[in-house]
Amino acid sequence: MNIVLLSGGSGKRLWPLSNDVRSKQFIKLFKTEDNDYLSMVQRVYNQICEVDKAANVTIATSKTQVSSIHNQLGKQVGVCVEPCRRDTFPAIALATAYLHDVKGVSEDEAVIVCPVDPYVNLDYFQAVKKLGELAELGDSNLTLMGIEPTYPSEKYGYIMPTDKENISKVDSFKEKPDTETAKTYISQGALWNAGVFAYKLGYMLDKAHELIDFDNYHDLFNKYETLTKISFDYAVVEKEDNIQVMRFSGQWKDLGTWNTFAEAMEDATIGKVIMNDTCQDVNVINELDIPVLCMGLKNVVVSASAQGILISDKEETDFIKPFVDNMDEDIMFADKSWGSYRVLSKGEDSLTIKLNIKAGSWLSYHSHASRDEIWNIVSGQGEVTVDEDSRQVNKGDVISIKSGSKHMIKAITDMEVIEIQMGKEISVNDKCKFKFD
Amino acid sequence: MNIVLLSGGSGKRLWPLSNDVRSKQFIKLFKTEDNDYLSMVQRVYNQICEVDKAANVTIATSKTQVSSIHNQLGKQVGVCVEPCRRDTFPAIALATAYLHDVKGVSEDEAVIVCPVDPYVNLDYFQAVKKLGELAELGDSNLTLMGIEPTYPSEKYGYIMPTDKENISKVDSFKEKPDTETAKTYISQGALWNAGVFAYKLGYMLDKAHELIDFDNYHDLFNKYETLTKISFDYAVVEKEDNIQVMRFSGQWKDLGTWNTFAEAMEDATIGKVIMNDTCQDVNVINELDIPVLCMGLKNVVVSASAQGILISDKEETDFIKPFVDNMDEDIMFADKSWGSYRVLSKGEDSLTIKLNIKAGSWLSYHSHASRDEIWNIVSGQGEVTVDEDSRQVNKGDVISIKSGSKHMIKAITDMEVIEIQMGKEISVNDKCKFKFD
Repeated sequence: MNIVLLSGGSGKRLWPLSNDVRSKQFIKLFKTEDNDYLSMVQRVYNQICEVDKAANVTIATSKTQVSSIHNQLGKQVGVCVEPCRRDTFPAIALATAYLHDVKGVSEDEAVIVCPVDPYVNLDYFQAVKKLGELAELGDSNLTLMGIEPTYPSEKYGYIMPTDKENISKVDSFKEKPDTETAKTYISQGALWNAGVFAYKLGYMLDKAHELIDFDNYHDLFNKYETLTKISFDYAVVEKEDNIQVMRFSGQWKDLGTWNTFAEAMEDATIGKVIMNDTCQDVNVINELDIPVLCMGLKNVVVSASAQGILISDKEETDFIKPFVDNMDEDIMFADKSWGSYRVLSKGEDSLTIKLNIKAGSWLSYHSHASRDEIWNIVSGQGEVTVDEDSRQVNKGDVISIKSGSKHMIKAITDMEVIEIQMGKEISVNDKCKFKFD
Repeated sequence: MNIVLLSGGSGKRLWPLSNDVRSKQFIKLFKTEDNDYLSMVQRVYNQICEVDKAANVTIATSKTQVSSIHNQLGKQVGVCVEPCRRDTFPAIALATAYLHDVKGVSEDEAVIVCPVDPYVNLDYFQAVKKLGELAELGDSNLTLMGIEPTYPSEKYGYIMPTDKENISKVDSFKEKPDTETAKTYISQGALWNAGVFAYKLGYMLDKAHELIDFDNYHDLFNKYETLTKISFDYAVVEKEDNIQVMRFSGQWKDLGTWNTFAEAMEDATIGKVIMNDTCQDVNVINELDIPVLCMGLKNVVVSASAQGILISDKEETDFIKPFVDNMDEDIMFADKSWGSYRVLSKGEDSLTIKLNIKAGSWLSYHSHASRDEIWNIVSGQGEVTVDEDSRQVNKGDVISIKSGSKHMIKAITDMEVIEIQMGKEISVNDKCKFKFD
């Protein structure tokens, strides 16, 4: 099957484990049998591969997530990068063109679009696969997944089918209702709209050409910034009469807040945590190296990272967003394609950072206009180049890099480097990249 | 007045703001009018100086606290260092000999001994001064302060006076009772024993010579390790018939747990803290650079430092000790006479530390047998010596120090240095000090 995973979202609701560069789908919270932890995106990717080994998976996302995706899924996964945010219709058009022109998917094949972060079991992706098969049969132009509601939620849009069969034509769509209206909908056989739909590639390509003037994927990519923002619902769904829906009644959860995330945790705690026996219904996720001691807490979630510390009554976690919006903080950690970094200390005109670089990976050849840097090689072996001059470096070596100097580092073994940045204006934007021959 | 402040105690109960090298009396929690924060020891020292400008203050303590005392009170304060722990009688004997032989206090002068950490107002130290005056009159050999009980506490020992006058002879002492017994004591006019007492210096010197064979302060200091552990109560108080007590009814609090500390906080929070309006009776002390966000908490104390994070129901903070005892953690921060340090990152065979060195201060000339070090000068100016070779250093300079090399740094202006330690066995005990000419 051809599956496009829409990977958007900001890091507000699961602060401080998510931030502006790490969205919630990249937080490692799901314990494996090997006592390792997987992120949502890793969990979903593994599930898809288990249901269909030959699945052609493409992640449609923004530039800021590419490093995290490569870090967590490796470089073999398809990534369709939106040059900027232009709402869901341009994103789906771009991904469809990418599948056709880059991946060679034919117009008769089905494409399934799905959010990257449902908390589900294998039966969900079996249903997703079935959705693709239905789309390929061609009875409808769009084939949706409808989730059997378990309560009259105000959080979801509703799909009204024409009957209560497993597969039905869609009569209409309803916006998020209040509880009473939701009850009425449900009594009429309504389903939650989980944002999962399948279509024949040719259908969506036609829709794209109808609304956007472009030749092929690369042309669409290049003019992406000029496109009008328009949602998929508005551009396609509302105008399409021939839509069918397939019911799904297995587990489906939207882990959008700490409260729902805590429910999905296998163990009550992750990381260095001590809890006394008067704690009840407490979940702690500690990414710091220092211990968290909890005593006598009830119904609380604690979450600590280099970005900050959250301590909240579980129900209250739903209301976190405005507080995080107002923080206006610097990024304190990030997963990169080459490894990860973490801010250790901020001085007045300095920043001390720890870089962990994976064996075989490298930081791009670049320079900074307004800051000097010092690399302290703390462990591992690598090759450092400063202004065309390359040399091997080992534990204990120190490399001073003046502002304006081009520099790069390539790890031969796994490396840990303490980088000290010094300058009046230290900014992630002060970076000029060069080709390295 | 001559006052000896007994500064002992470990950092267990106020973890993580205290640790094995920072006892609770050095935590800066008391807000001043200038929006600065004072520690208990600073607060008490300032109060004594306000009551008696000419007060001769000596802090009797262990070696581990000397750096913190000099850091917080400066180098002018008298410090009588116990070479090792030998219980209260040897400690008081040593302090008395110190006052006589080093400070030149005569045998007729009164000495008042007092814990370093009562949470009190000026009237307390006015009473302390009065206690010294009473001791000098010589009606009794020991003059105690008795605190008027405010409730039948099980936490304190009780002093039973012969009558209910402001100054009375002491009839007997009672160990910590249960609540019912405490009620009976109080109905009989009993007072809390706050560990404050005054005596003529000659009296205590005689007692010391009776029990210990020594010539003078230096002799006593040198043989301190050979002394038998014996409490002041057992050695002196229980054998003394002529004791008087002076009543004190002003504010006196023993801030021994986070719960009592929180009560004494002027503002609910210290440091980077955000609280939503559904929080009730929450105190947060955050020494980290990252924000703490609290939502919907009730009756909770949060305390965060480089050592760890505590989140506890207030009442439960009384029971913290065994959890901290079992942590067996490394020291992550310390106040030193020259400034302070903080561990930023631990690697497998490495440790990254931030040193803040005050202008005019220096680290002793020393070497390490089993680790190399790198000093990254991040701000300020100083002078570095490595193996007799001195040079001036500035921001951006890097000094590599191989194991075995003697090295020191002296700050000309305030300096920030990122020190990277590398070696198979990194330990604070791997340090050999040298004289620097």
